[in-house]
Amino acid sequence: MTLIATAQSMTFDAPLALQSGASVRGYSLAYETYGTLNADRSNAVLICHALNASHHVAGVYEGQPRSEGWWDNMIGPGKPVDTNRFFVIGVNNLGSCFGSTGPMHVSPDTGRVYGADFPVVTVEDWVNAQARLLDALGVAQLAAVMGGSLGGMQALSWTLQHPERVRHAVVVASAPNLTAENIAFNEVARRAIVTDPDFHGGHFYAHGVVPKRGLRIARMIGHITYLSDDVMNEKFGRQLREAVLDSASGYRYSTQEVEFQIESYLRYQGDKFAEYFDANTYLLITRALDYFDPARAHGGDLTAALARAACKFLLVSFTTDWRFSPARSREIVKALVANRREVSYAEIDAPHGHDAFLLDDPRYLEAVRAYFANIPTGATA
Amino acid sequence: MTLIATAQSMTFDAPLALQSGASVRGYSLAYETYGTLNADRSNAVLICHALNASHHVAGVYEGQPRSEGWWDNMIGPGKPVDTNRFFVIGVNNLGSCFGSTGPMHVSPDTGRVYGADFPVVTVEDWVNAQARLLDALGVAQLAAVMGGSLGGMQALSWTLQHPERVRHAVVVASAPNLTAENIAFNEVARRAIVTDPDFHGGHFYAHGVVPKRGLRIARMIGHITYLSDDVMNEKFGRQLREAVLDSASGYRYSTQEVEFQIESYLRYQGDKFAEYFDANTYLLITRALDYFDPARAHGGDLTAALARAACKFLLVSFTTDWRFSPARSREIVKALVANRREVSYAEIDAPHGHDAFLLDDPRYLEAVRAYFANIPTGATA
Repeated sequence: MTLIATAQSMTFDAPLALQSGASVRGYSLAYETYGTLNADRSNAVLICHALNASHHVAGVYEGQPRSEGWWDNMIGPGKPVDTNRFFVIGVNNLGSCFGSTGPMHVSPDTGRVYGADFPVVTVEDWVNAQARLLDALGVAQLAAVMGGSLGGMQALSWTLQHPERVRHAVVVASAPNLTAENIAFNEVARRAIVTDPDFHGGHFYAHGVVPKRGLRIARMIGHITYLSDDVMNEKFGRQLREAVLDSASGYRYSTQEVEFQIESYLRYQGDKFAEYFDANTYLLITRALDYFDPARAHGGDLTAALARAACKFLLVSFTTDWRFSPARSREIVKALVANRREVSYAEIDAPHGHDAFLLDDPRYLEAVRAYFANIPTGATA
Repeated sequence: MTLIATAQSMTFDAPLALQSGASVRGYSLAYETYGTLNADRSNAVLICHALNASHHVAGVYEGQPRSEGWWDNMIGPGKPVDTNRFFVIGVNNLGSCFGSTGPMHVSPDTGRVYGADFPVVTVEDWVNAQARLLDALGVAQLAAVMGGSLGGMQALSWTLQHPERVRHAVVVASAPNLTAENIAFNEVARRAIVTDPDFHGGHFYAHGVVPKRGLRIARMIGHITYLSDDVMNEKFGRQLREAVLDSASGYRYSTQEVEFQIESYLRYQGDKFAEYFDANTYLLITRALDYFDPARAHGGDLTAALARAACKFLLVSFTTDWRFSPARSREIVKALVANRREVSYAEIDAPHGHDAFLLDDPRYLEAVRAYFANIPTGATA
């Protein structure tokens, strides 16, 4: 049975105070829902997205059979997060370029396009904006909040900012904060964008250009870090581009032309991304990643930071994920256990690196399915 | 005792045939020598350099006490490669920007600056150019050839191209070829340079500009991959820039300003590099890395490829080096052992990533010292 998705939008007039001290008002959040909220409103599941995703989590749009949501393998009728049982909400975050208010929109305060003046938003700000959406949808408490990578950070932050509103948190391929190396990769990507002459200090819309050179570099770096060395060797290895596979020597001996398959793949990914992703959104989202660090207010003590969490947890990590390594998930697990919280942890032996959280590993999907099967819904929940 | 270095240069009029089918003529190689060639010319050691280095391997220039060579901790009087015993030669490779003929020089064929038209040079080409220099210096056979990273590839290639001219090869932090991930990082760096509007197709000298934006990005990426995640966390972690360490909140909430120490460090490294490194040289050297693959002509069989090697070997790798991991060194060791070659292998437990090969790890320096101590020199060698 095909799940048909319908994008919706809700506008919030009251200002939302942000961690930076700034605020936004008159903003909209794009969202989608799948399944039905039950009578006692106890079966809602909120899905939080990562860098390059949106509120379109599951299903397809009417008449667009190839428009599957980004977690359609995970969420839908009969799927691990079963929309026959759960009322699932996907929401696009503030600052995004996929429907919610972001840098490409007009500020009600200035009457001008935000551009680089869109306020810096944090994981905590996103969670507060999501909480307002849930208020409007009549969801006082979530059966579960779930996300991967940056989405997992939001799920974790939900349990700290609104512990009474979450019964379960599913945190996939995530971390309690970014390492220096991760911040470093983000910074290189940002510098590539910001130093692109077409960036114009973030006000490139007015110049009718897009800093595509920078976006391409940013995406290429991202792609390398989302994959594992193993899977890159398996998929591409040192294979030359197809055109020369039958030639005698093979090498073109060129510094600028594509020589290896991996180069062709990365260039393609970079070109595609630069066509649709907003440069200011890229800066905002990578900064939200950098800033997230719940232990920071507790002198670096993650156990103290997670003491506020009251719900049950499922943590999932993937062995070849070097961007959000299993060791980082284990830090969260240990801190929760030290707080005597109920935690399930699945470390999946998968070759696909960070990208594994979006893929069809049967052990992974089964772990999530089993966890959700044990979350009671209905009036007795 | 301070070793005083003197840069020298030798010009070669006869064309050097390159792997690409092109050739170069009328080129110069910058080099330095330390110690004295003995009577039977049996104590010569050739040092091959990696990406960002030169012929200035050891010692300092007269009156410039801070001009230490890039491997000065390794090479000199009483050091692991002892210049009281060995006649050590450092040579700058063709295509470099540190003294030997490269893209910034004038082609004798066209009378114009080479720029992007400098021919693609490979590890094998460099070795052949180095062999000509040794001919001119009267060195028929090397006591040892030694290099780290890309320099290690040259040392390995010496043993295959001129097996009768090498008694020992010391291959540090190297690999039999680059993985897809390494090629990918090189390609992103190259794209950053080539798509910088100031690159002008590689003929930027004529425009009086330098593609500094691209060079900065390239260097930042390089720096991340030369360090280990561990050492980055230890050196920088999530420390904020110094200016705000005393402020209450700490975060600036900015997408473009420096927020973390690691960002400040990377920007500084990028800026510094862009001031002195040539963009065309960067393209050439990363391509030489990509192309090196001695097993390629043997259907990927490294054992078959290394059958030509006749000398003894020392291989060294570092546990946290994820760019040239110990597994890659072990591939070389295994292939040599399968050919019944005499191989010593030291896997050094060091936290510094790929950069470790340039640093002062005592176990590493001791392993090299012990190896060289057992290389006989003098008339009885």
